[in-house]
Amino acid sequence: MKQNEIKITFQPSGRSIYVLPGTTLLEAAARAGFILQTPCGGKGTCGKCKVRVTSGHCAEPVPNSVLSNDQIRQGFRLACQAKAEEPLVIEIPAASLFEHEHQILIKSGKYEVKLSPYLRKIYFTLEEPSMQNPQADLARLRQALGDIRVSYKMLRHIPQFLRNNQWKGTAVLADRQLIALEKGDTCGSLYGVAFDIGTTTMVGTLIDLACGTEAAVSAGMNPQVTYGDDVLSRVQHVREQPGSLSELQAVLIDAINKLIERMAAEKGISLSSIYDISVAGNTAMQQIFCGLNPHALGEIPFTPVFDQAFRIPAESLGIKANPASDTFVFGQVGGFVGGDTVAGMLASRIDQWGKPVLLVDIGTNGEIVLFNQGRMWAASTAAGPAFEGARISHGMRATAGAIEKVIMGEEVQINIIGNVKPIGICGTGLIDAVAEMLRTGVLDVTGRMLPLDELAATVPAALRKRLIVRDQQTDFILVHAIESGVDGPIMITQKDIRELQLAAGAVRAGINILLKRAGIAADELDAVLLAGAFGNFIRRNNARRIGLLPQIPCDKIRFIGNAASLGAKMALLSSREREYSERLRGKTEHVDLSLDPEFQMEFSAAMLFPEHEPVV
Amino acid sequence: MKQNEIKITFQPSGRSIYVLPGTTLLEAAARAGFILQTPCGGKGTCGKCKVRVTSGHCAEPVPNSVLSNDQIRQGFRLACQAKAEEPLVIEIPAASLFEHEHQILIKSGKYEVKLSPYLRKIYFTLEEPSMQNPQADLARLRQALGDIRVSYKMLRHIPQFLRNNQWKGTAVLADRQLIALEKGDTCGSLYGVAFDIGTTTMVGTLIDLACGTEAAVSAGMNPQVTYGDDVLSRVQHVREQPGSLSELQAVLIDAINKLIERMAAEKGISLSSIYDISVAGNTAMQQIFCGLNPHALGEIPFTPVFDQAFRIPAESLGIKANPASDTFVFGQVGGFVGGDTVAGMLASRIDQWGKPVLLVDIGTNGEIVLFNQGRMWAASTAAGPAFEGARISHGMRATAGAIEKVIMGEEVQINIIGNVKPIGICGTGLIDAVAEMLRTGVLDVTGRMLPLDELAATVPAALRKRLIVRDQQTDFILVHAIESGVDGPIMITQKDIRELQLAAGAVRAGINILLKRAGIAADELDAVLLAGAFGNFIRRNNARRIGLLPQIPCDKIRFIGNAASLGAKMALLSSREREYSERLRGKTEHVDLSLDPEFQMEFSAAMLFPEHEPVV
Repeated sequence: MKQNEIKITFQPSGRSIYVLPGTTLLEAAARAGFILQTPCGGKGTCGKCKVRVTSGHCAEPVPNSVLSNDQIRQGFRLACQAKAEEPLVIEIPAASLFEHEHQILIKSGKYEVKLSPYLRKIYFTLEEPSMQNPQADLARLRQALGDIRVSYKMLRHIPQFLRNNQWKGTAVLADRQLIALEKGDTCGSLYGVAFDIGTTTMVGTLIDLACGTEAAVSAGMNPQVTYGDDVLSRVQHVREQPGSLSELQAVLIDAINKLIERMAAEKGISLSSIYDISVAGNTAMQQIFCGLNPHALGEIPFTPVFDQAFRIPAESLGIKANPASDTFVFGQVGGFVGGDTVAGMLASRIDQWGKPVLLVDIGTNGEIVLFNQGRMWAASTAAGPAFEGARISHGMRATAGAIEKVIMGEEVQINIIGNVKPIGICGTGLIDAVAEMLRTGVLDVTGRMLPLDELAATVPAALRKRLIVRDQQTDFILVHAIESGVDGPIMITQKDIRELQLAAGAVRAGINILLKRAGIAADELDAVLLAGAFGNFIRRNNARRIGLLPQIPCDKIRFIGNAASLGAKMALLSSREREYSERLRGKTEHVDLSLDPEFQMEFSAAMLFPEHEPVV
Repeated sequence: MKQNEIKITFQPSGRSIYVLPGTTLLEAAARAGFILQTPCGGKGTCGKCKVRVTSGHCAEPVPNSVLSNDQIRQGFRLACQAKAEEPLVIEIPAASLFEHEHQILIKSGKYEVKLSPYLRKIYFTLEEPSMQNPQADLARLRQALGDIRVSYKMLRHIPQFLRNNQWKGTAVLADRQLIALEKGDTCGSLYGVAFDIGTTTMVGTLIDLACGTEAAVSAGMNPQVTYGDDVLSRVQHVREQPGSLSELQAVLIDAINKLIERMAAEKGISLSSIYDISVAGNTAMQQIFCGLNPHALGEIPFTPVFDQAFRIPAESLGIKANPASDTFVFGQVGGFVGGDTVAGMLASRIDQWGKPVLLVDIGTNGEIVLFNQGRMWAASTAAGPAFEGARISHGMRATAGAIEKVIMGEEVQINIIGNVKPIGICGTGLIDAVAEMLRTGVLDVTGRMLPLDELAATVPAALRKRLIVRDQQTDFILVHAIESGVDGPIMITQKDIRELQLAAGAVRAGINILLKRAGIAADELDAVLLAGAFGNFIRRNNARRIGLLPQIPCDKIRFIGNAASLGAKMALLSSREREYSERLRGKTEHVDLSLDPEFQMEFSAAMLFPEHEPVV
């Protein structure tokens, strides 16, 4: 496979990836972790995804109003239009990034987050007590810091601190609460960490709260996967094994601490300069993180413990940060629709869209939010971890060795993450493969892989050769043993198809139920916002082909990156965003799909693949 | 002395005391601990101090508009007018009490405190989670309790509590904070304790917050007296002995706990039903109570740690009450003007007086507040513990055996607390004695006890015999050895007179400074409110004679009982009173007498006794 892959290097980061010829620069950039702005949906009309080719040749576009002739001469291309046909070096202007990396944050389409963090530092110099000004220590401090609140512990600390430090120092404020006093002027050193805790994966971001920039990012597996690969199995584990809640909490906190330590080391800062933590996850993840028994999430009517956003002392959770810091945990909508959904709604500003819009965050669970005429509905579907590679014969996460793209024509072409032999298939690759198998006629709409004698004559010979029948069941060889990085071929089995049908069907059924609630049809949607790490790499066309997404034009399907993580970062950057998230949560109606009488019907229907290729 | 004392018994309590013939029933009642209402200042015009003589004869008053003939026939008398000449049994109607004992609280002259405590209990019955109502536990609880706040600890407790108790129980709320959940309906059992922590003495009151009544009262010495008998000496002790702060705090908390346990035992309640504590004391007492170093109160410019009122977890102070309870500590004005003064201002509603009014709370410190034209000034004078019997040769507190009243005519008549031989003299007795010595010419205005050869001819022979000269100094035998309960006579020495001059002079100088600040003369005062346990027993006339109080008419001097203790109780009864106390504190200007250039002059002048008997 290697022979026809081409190397694309992105500047200024220097990150490289290998892609199949014909891949758009937009897609290549996303694969390298750079989400570009595409408000026009990749139609080539807005000019926001502009990049510059600095080495290698990339076909010049027909001059248009978006790029000037000068720009084109300088190597500028629209990433959504330009395709890589040979090795390239691409420079990404900061303004083209959807999420600016290591830069003043955060633009999410139409708005910017103004830096106004819940945590602040203020350097103060107080007048010493004198006969002219004999006021109480606390009154003196209030004069410099405003109407602060102090705990009893802090009250005991203040007099000594002020007298030992010549009445000067840096106050650390959490909103109006004085949580720490530091010697000298340390205003330049104030950090927070934002976490998106997924059922399978976790992403942490270290934010420099003094200037609002991202200082480091670190991701890892949620170590709870050993207790069950989906949310419900973990909740069941806690229900069945008394005492296991603290165990599940401990492994999670431990993993979070490792990410924090890694990021702090990378940036070269002390853990004690981290004064704020924000966490977004689904209700089960958040409750386990908080040490709140998720027992009632394991039985009808799936009741969470809390709804409003919460602050919990980091110390009582055992999080490695300044002992005075709190953890902000996002509010929860209900059932399994938790803080990650709220954070995603916050990041996407779904309520300001004006027209009907759908937010779909695909992970181990699929969360769906529909906005229409000022109202919002949210549902969680137990998509299962198929999209994240679990429960698939050769499934794997989107890391090195994963087949992440599949094209089937006369032969099978694949793209692998990293410059290695393929060792498995990740979610996007699986969707591609299944979509292509539908197109080529290897698969019928019921999801059955056809035996050789039922195949249409149009199925290319090369594909026929890949079909093997075992135990009256047909499987598909995606990578022959000789080309594979594992012992034997990489297969897509009939069972894998069924898993994908369940996962996609659940999401699609959820979408349909919400559309019914709102009383609108799919083609009335102004946009489908695809969120989640996975969402960024999906081929829109193929997502529609397998019925995961409704049949709406591809240019209405927009990638918005990891919205939950973005929302968690926004909560660190501005207390107004926290309040906004609470308003969004309060206005959102939870739709419990398991209690919806129509869901089973929709689910059954959605498990059938669409008859036809999407037409627009 | 016993022979001419008469016994007065008060109903319904059954409490008895012995008084000299001619004592008003108002004074006798006060000696027995019953402060009667006297809004007219004891002129016999308002009728509020009405009592009923049920046994013994008490001269009928001239019929007037205040008491009807019927009432007089039934034995009703005005306590401020009627005098005891023989043993009596007196019934005190509840309405005549200034502080209703064991009754719906609290009238302070013009206003009533509406029961609206910071601590509340609410019994709730929640709908169980169902498919129709699957909301989060916390949302469910909020529906019953309003917009509550919960700590992380409480959040962890809620789900289990609700499920173990069929979704019913009693919520304990501190303002909006849910601090405890109790099984069943325990709304009838909610208590608070209010403390007035004086430098020398402490008073605790157990309040039934369910109905707003006093459940028990208990008083005791401040055990810190062993570390110094005044505020400054205790502050010095802490400054000089590192580590002694926690020692002073510990003995105080220990004594407070003993009072709490005593009251709880008396009422037969569990300590865990006490959910609120309020504390009023001067700045040094409050800071030591809180474990806040009073170091800066021991040097110019006498800076307290805090000004605003504070809530401190009872658990972190080691107070024996429900572990979820907080201690409300009154705000502090500045210097040594602390929470007791603020509580006293609250109880007296000094700011609502309309006309110029002076509040004087005499204890080990003397606190003075002046209200004039919407402004308030407060000062603390280091009166020293002379009024509480300390630093006086035969001084003692106003307990059994104390001479509490002295009349000098041809002979010396004394009244003793309790049916025992005299063992010392308390503050009121000392003031009486000194005033009488001035009247009879035994003492001159400089405070010098005259030797025999300088005495005027008018001084009765019996008094002359009591003067003895030792070391060129004259002392006065108040009780001869043969009549005394101690080994030897009870003396008033020249040094005792000097101590009293210092104490009275300090208070009086403070009053004069505040009057100057306000730009008014003493005779413009509409009232002088005398507060403090001591204040209730003082003879107004004698207090003026020794110059402790300005020369204003006696009917303008009003006893308002232990205002600090009353304020502390009010803070338990209503959160509005807490807020009100903070507003009062915020509006009060602290006058630091030690920094006032005129204070020394005023002090010197005030130490001279007035030349003449007060005329009105």
